[in-house]
Amino acid sequence: MENRFNIVIDTLGSDKGPDAILEGARIVLEENPNINLTLVGDQEVIKAKGLPIDRIKIIHAPETVTNYDNPVEAFYKKANVSVFKAAEECAKDENCIGMINAGNTGALLVGVLRFLLNEKRTRPCLAAILPNMAKGFTCLVDTGASIDCGPSQLIEFAHLGSDFMKKLYKIENPRVGLLSNGSEPTKGNHLVKETHPLLAKEEGINFVGNIEGNKALAGMCDVLVSEGFAGNQVLKNTEGTAVALITEIMKFGKKTGQEEIAQQIAGYLMKTYDFESLGAGIMLGARKYVLKCRGSSGPSAIRSACKILTNIMDNKTFYE
Amino acid sequence: MENRFNIVIDTLGSDKGPDAILEGARIVLEENPNINLTLVGDQEVIKAKGLPIDRIKIIHAPETVTNYDNPVEAFYKKANVSVFKAAEECAKDENCIGMINAGNTGALLVGVLRFLLNEKRTRPCLAAILPNMAKGFTCLVDTGASIDCGPSQLIEFAHLGSDFMKKLYKIENPRVGLLSNGSEPTKGNHLVKETHPLLAKEEGINFVGNIEGNKALAGMCDVLVSEGFAGNQVLKNTEGTAVALITEIMKFGKKTGQEEIAQQIAGYLMKTYDFESLGAGIMLGARKYVLKCRGSSGPSAIRSACKILTNIMDNKTFYE
Repeated sequence: MENRFNIVIDTLGSDKGPDAILEGARIVLEENPNINLTLVGDQEVIKAKGLPIDRIKIIHAPETVTNYDNPVEAFYKKANVSVFKAAEECAKDENCIGMINAGNTGALLVGVLRFLLNEKRTRPCLAAILPNMAKGFTCLVDTGASIDCGPSQLIEFAHLGSDFMKKLYKIENPRVGLLSNGSEPTKGNHLVKETHPLLAKEEGINFVGNIEGNKALAGMCDVLVSEGFAGNQVLKNTEGTAVALITEIMKFGKKTGQEEIAQQIAGYLMKTYDFESLGAGIMLGARKYVLKCRGSSGPSAIRSACKILTNIMDNKTFYE
Repeated sequence: MENRFNIVIDTLGSDKGPDAILEGARIVLEENPNINLTLVGDQEVIKAKGLPIDRIKIIHAPETVTNYDNPVEAFYKKANVSVFKAAEECAKDENCIGMINAGNTGALLVGVLRFLLNEKRTRPCLAAILPNMAKGFTCLVDTGASIDCGPSQLIEFAHLGSDFMKKLYKIENPRVGLLSNGSEPTKGNHLVKETHPLLAKEEGINFVGNIEGNKALAGMCDVLVSEGFAGNQVLKNTEGTAVALITEIMKFGKKTGQEEIAQQIAGYLMKTYDFESLGAGIMLGARKYVLKCRGSSGPSAIRSACKILTNIMDNKTFYE
């Protein structure tokens, strides 16, 4: 018999509203007969979408954590927050492989910390799997969940990233780089300078030294470690620069009357660099697969996130 | 009579060696009959280049500060360091408009602090003038000279960047953004959260709020403020991503037999995004124009840096 499993989707928190997320859910159900969904959010809105009733479970949790709320306070003060209910359900449901969320990262982190910590109980980090120029992928940790962390956390991120790349990409001894402002071991801010020698002697870590921002995508490492603030810059800047260049290519095509080929090239690049529809971050250190889509996510982002989950279940890599 | 002026070039410190820098000097002399050069470095090497003797002055200072030295220690311990001699000469020579260096950023900062501080005597910062999607330019400060700084320094950077964009780009009231991991005022690391309200009430600063890394090039601000570590990531990552995409375009052209148009598009993009040859950072807060080329600089980088200096002298913008 075919494997059947459940995925929990938090329908609230996306800038595009619950209907965009539910449209993604509709596509997922259509394309994956072996997946059932647990949809968390405002039950009236969810019901109104008219999804096949035998393949969804609805959890009514209409409250959200906004970017202006303190997520920890929200956890104690608000009763029916969708992201917390989603994490709780994801933990409880044995047939559930993971959850998808497109809301506030801090709130998701609190949900994971509360319900989904793995046996090591280390602080989770939010990883992005970025395409690199060596035709491989680099796991960037952390991309914004853990800001202002210390060296011991960066070392945990290195382990979480290494474990993930070993498991998913079958890389035996993943090369771990440390994001810095210069490749020499003497370069960095206080945190990087402190972390460098610790990573170098850390057991189980194949440390390859400092990596500069222009080499983040060069394929010099399989795991790129950073605290979340600078890591967030690398992730988002990569996206922003790619968008800028793709826009320029389209303009060039228009200006020179070569729109068709410009469109071909732009399309080719977007297959790799359109993080909005490709892209979900994955929370490493959680007991189940927790995927974080961008706040601007629409249906295609939800579809991609589900594809990532099924890829992982099928023992494939992230974007296959 | 035509304006004649001097530029000081530190011939040491580039990864490509002094000859690449001297080749740049040769091109500059050839293209700019009204510029004389003061070349600092190993006099034998400089002489061997055979540049027109009536248009150059040579200062023999063969020592360097490597990426493994502490620049402040080097200042006191080494006698003939080219970057320090270059800064000293730049300060002393009344006909000198500025200097160009492609070596260690920390050493350049020490040289500027020692010899070239302006009347306000604030800590200088290293700015990059980045192309933005609104067809303008955004001044990113700091890009790596000042790591681990506090809120008061970020506010100084905001002023230095604003003054520069007012003067050079004739922007009356430059919009100042603060680099963060989210656009909401509540987002950021400790430093950003502390700086945000201070920038908002700072007199003479037109603060437009937090800017995320994917919007760094969107043209939402004229000055983007960051401490040097994260700023360095944005600068270098923009370059690295652009290189990755341009490489992909060439590959696509080859694969599909459309190499000519792919080359055209790549060339078009490189005009804006090839930071290596375009690119020099400018040290704001110095008494003269101090241009910092990348460590990987060759002749074209030196040529571009001189062009920037003459543009500024001619009351034009950076890359005209």
